[in-house]
Amino acid sequence: MAICEILSVGTEILLGDILNTNCRFLSRELASMGISVLRHTTVGDNPVRLAEAFNEALGRSDIVIATGGLGPTPDDITRDVCSKEFGFELEYNPGIMKTIEEYFVRAGRTMAPTNRRQAYAPKGGVIFPNLNGTAPGIGMKKDGKCVVLMPGPPYEMAPMFRQSVMPYLEEYRSGAIVSHEIRTIGIGESNMALVAGGMIDAENPSVAPYCKIGEAYLRVTAKAGTPEEADRLAQPVIEELKNRLGDYVYGIDVSCVEEALVPLLKKHSLTITCAESCTAGYIAKRITDIPGASEVFKLGMVTYANEIKAKFLGVSEDTLSQHGAVSEQTAAEMARGIRQAAGADIGISVTGFAGPGADEEGKAPGLIYVGLSAPDKEITEKIETGRNDREYNRYVAASRAMNLARKYILWRYPDNEQ
Amino acid sequence: MAICEILSVGTEILLGDILNTNCRFLSRELASMGISVLRHTTVGDNPVRLAEAFNEALGRSDIVIATGGLGPTPDDITRDVCSKEFGFELEYNPGIMKTIEEYFVRAGRTMAPTNRRQAYAPKGGVIFPNLNGTAPGIGMKKDGKCVVLMPGPPYEMAPMFRQSVMPYLEEYRSGAIVSHEIRTIGIGESNMALVAGGMIDAENPSVAPYCKIGEAYLRVTAKAGTPEEADRLAQPVIEELKNRLGDYVYGIDVSCVEEALVPLLKKHSLTITCAESCTAGYIAKRITDIPGASEVFKLGMVTYANEIKAKFLGVSEDTLSQHGAVSEQTAAEMARGIRQAAGADIGISVTGFAGPGADEEGKAPGLIYVGLSAPDKEITEKIETGRNDREYNRYVAASRAMNLARKYILWRYPDNEQ
Repeated sequence: MAICEILSVGTEILLGDILNTNCRFLSRELASMGISVLRHTTVGDNPVRLAEAFNEALGRSDIVIATGGLGPTPDDITRDVCSKEFGFELEYNPGIMKTIEEYFVRAGRTMAPTNRRQAYAPKGGVIFPNLNGTAPGIGMKKDGKCVVLMPGPPYEMAPMFRQSVMPYLEEYRSGAIVSHEIRTIGIGESNMALVAGGMIDAENPSVAPYCKIGEAYLRVTAKAGTPEEADRLAQPVIEELKNRLGDYVYGIDVSCVEEALVPLLKKHSLTITCAESCTAGYIAKRITDIPGASEVFKLGMVTYANEIKAKFLGVSEDTLSQHGAVSEQTAAEMARGIRQAAGADIGISVTGFAGPGADEEGKAPGLIYVGLSAPDKEITEKIETGRNDREYNRYVAASRAMNLARKYILWRYPDNEQ
Repeated sequence: MAICEILSVGTEILLGDILNTNCRFLSRELASMGISVLRHTTVGDNPVRLAEAFNEALGRSDIVIATGGLGPTPDDITRDVCSKEFGFELEYNPGIMKTIEEYFVRAGRTMAPTNRRQAYAPKGGVIFPNLNGTAPGIGMKKDGKCVVLMPGPPYEMAPMFRQSVMPYLEEYRSGAIVSHEIRTIGIGESNMALVAGGMIDAENPSVAPYCKIGEAYLRVTAKAGTPEEADRLAQPVIEELKNRLGDYVYGIDVSCVEEALVPLLKKHSLTITCAESCTAGYIAKRITDIPGASEVFKLGMVTYANEIKAKFLGVSEDTLSQHGAVSEQTAAEMARGIRQAAGADIGISVTGFAGPGADEEGKAPGLIYVGLSAPDKEITEKIETGRNDREYNRYVAASRAMNLARKYILWRYPDNEQ
C-alpha cells in the first residue's frame, strides 16, 4: 500500500485565520484509492521550514501532496522550494503564460506582472490545468516517488485533484475502498449499534456507527481489487442493515433528510408547506436547498408570535391559553392551519424552545413539538433533546418535522423503496 | 518569542472522517498570547509514529500541545506515549477517578471499566479538569519545555484551554497580539482596500483585507506589551477606517449583519418582517439565530410560488405578468405586502434566481432583487453576484436584504453609533 503525506503551506493556517479543509478532502479521496495517508503537516510561507518539512515527508513516504503557496506574490514559495529539493529545475513555459493571460481576459480583469511567476514549471514535470484560478498544479515523479503541488483555495484544488491528479496517481492505487453511509433518524447511536449487533465487529466490510446533529448513521466500508468488487461486498451488508433498521433509515449516501424527502414528494406529485415557530424558516430553507424544490413547495410561514399563530394559522385562543404555544395541540393546529392556507397536500409544523436558557415558564431548552397534517392523517411528536444549544435544537427539530412527512408518505404509499 | 507546535492525534483525521478544527482554534488563541505556532502535525493512533512526531516537535519548540487520544479505549495512546517520551511516569490518581465517577452519575450513565485508564496521570504533572467529558487534560514542564495534552472533542478541548491551559502557559506569553475585524457589506474587497489605502502597508497595527461570502472585511492587528496597550494602538486605526468606509461598516468584531441588525431594532423598539422567495426562510432563520429576536420578529413568509405572492402579499397580477416575479417592482410590492400583513415597522423582501443554472427565461443565476418598505421610505436594490452557487447566492441575498433594514434605521435615526 502506497504511503502518502499531505503538506499544507501557508502562514494564515498557522495563525488560525483559515480552517484547513484541504487535508480532509484529500484524505478521503486518497483513502478511496487505497493510498494510506500517515501524516498531515502544515508549515508557514518560510523557505527553510518548508524545505525541512518537505524533505522529511519525502523521506518517509511514496507520495507527497502539497497545497498552497503557488500564487503570484513573493511569499508564494512552494513551487520553487519543492521543485528544487526534489531535484527539478524550473523553466519558463509559454503555454502556461498563454492560459493565464486567457484566464484574465475571460474574467475581464487586468493581469498583474507578478502573475508571470506562475508560468514557471519544472522541466520534466507535468502541468495540471486550473479551471478556477491562475496557478496550475504540478506533478513530478522520480525514483519511484511522486510529488504533487496544488493551489490552496479549495475550489481550485478539489476539481484539479479529481480531474488531473487522481489519474496521475493511478499507479499507486491499491485495490479500492468503497464506503456507503446508511443514514437514520429517530434512533440513537447506541440503539442503532445494538440493532446492527455483531455486524459491527466484521472486518470487511466493516460497519462503524457515527452520530451527527441528532442523527445516527452507519458507515459500511469494503475493500477489494476494484470499486465494483468492493461494492458487491458492501451491498448485502447494506441490505441486511436496512432490513434491520426499517423506516429509521431515510437514505443511503444522502446527507440530510430533505435530500430524501424532496424526491419522494416529487415522485408522488405531493406538495408540502410548513408553519415554523422556533425553527423560524429553517425547514423552508432546507427544503429549498434542494434544487427544483419549487415543484413541491409553494408557501411557508414563520409564526413566531402567538397572535400570528392565531391570525394566520387559525390556532385557537383556547389552545394557546390552555396548553400554551409549546404543546402538542398547538403543533397539530399549526400543521392543519398551514396546510389549509397553502392548499397543500402535507402541512408540517414546529413549536418549541430552542434555547439558550429556559423559557419564561421554566420549560427546558430542547423541548419541541413537531406536527403533520394530511387529509387522511395527523401526527404529532414530542422531542426532548436535553441540550442547551440553539442551533442544534433548531436543526434537529427541522429534521424531525421533515421526517414526519417522509414517514407519512411511506405509510400512504407502502411500496416505496428507500 | 516562544515557539509552539500543535500535534493532533487520531486515525479518523487521517482518513478524512473528521475535520480538524482544533488546530485553528488553538492557533488563534496562541497567536493572541504572542506565542508563535510554527507547525501543525497530525498522526494516527500508532505509538511508534506518535512518539516520532512528538519527539521531533519537542526538539524544535518550547511548547508542544497535543489533542486527541485521551479516551478510555486501547487505541487512545497519547497519555502513555507522550508522558513516557517526555520522561514522566504515570501513576493512578484516585482524585481523577472520583471526578470521572461523579461525571457518570451526573450524566445518568454507567461507567465502563475501561474508563479507569483515564485516571492515570504523570507524577509531577498538572491536571486540567474537563467540564464536558471524562478525560482530564495534562500539563508537564521540564527543562524549560512544556507539554500539554488535551482531549480531541472541540467542546471539551476549547473550554479546558481557556480555563486551565492559558494560565498554565502564562510564562511563555510575549506581549499581546490583539485583532479586531471591521466588517463591511456592499463594497468589494479591492475597493475596500483602495479606501484603506496606505494603511494596509503599516506594520503595527497591521491592516489586512479579507473577503467572505459576499462581504469584505479588514483585520486590524496590533502588538504590544499588554492587551490594553495593543488595543490602544488599534483603536485610532479602527476609527479612521470606520470614518473612511462610512455606512459600508456594519460592525466591529461581529460575524454577520444580523448580529448588528437585531440590537439596532431592539434599541429603537422596531419590529421587522420578511417575505422571501429565493432565500426561502434564510432571512427568518438568520434573524432568529440571535437569541431574543422574538422581541423584534413576529412573522415571516416564504412565498415561493407566484399565486402565493399574489394571495398572501397582494403583489398585483399586472406586476407579475409585466415585470416578472424577479423584478424590482415585485420586490417592492412584496416588502409592502408583508409589512402590512404583519403590522410591522419594517418589511424586507427577496426575489431572484439562486441557481444552479439559469431560470426558464434564461436569466442568469445570482440575479436578485431585495426590497424594503417602511411607512416613510421604500428602497429596492438589484444584486448580480455573477455566481452559479445556490448557497452563496441565497446567503448574499439574505445579507443584503437585512442590510437594507440596517441602512434604513441609520437614515431614520442618524445619531446611531455603529
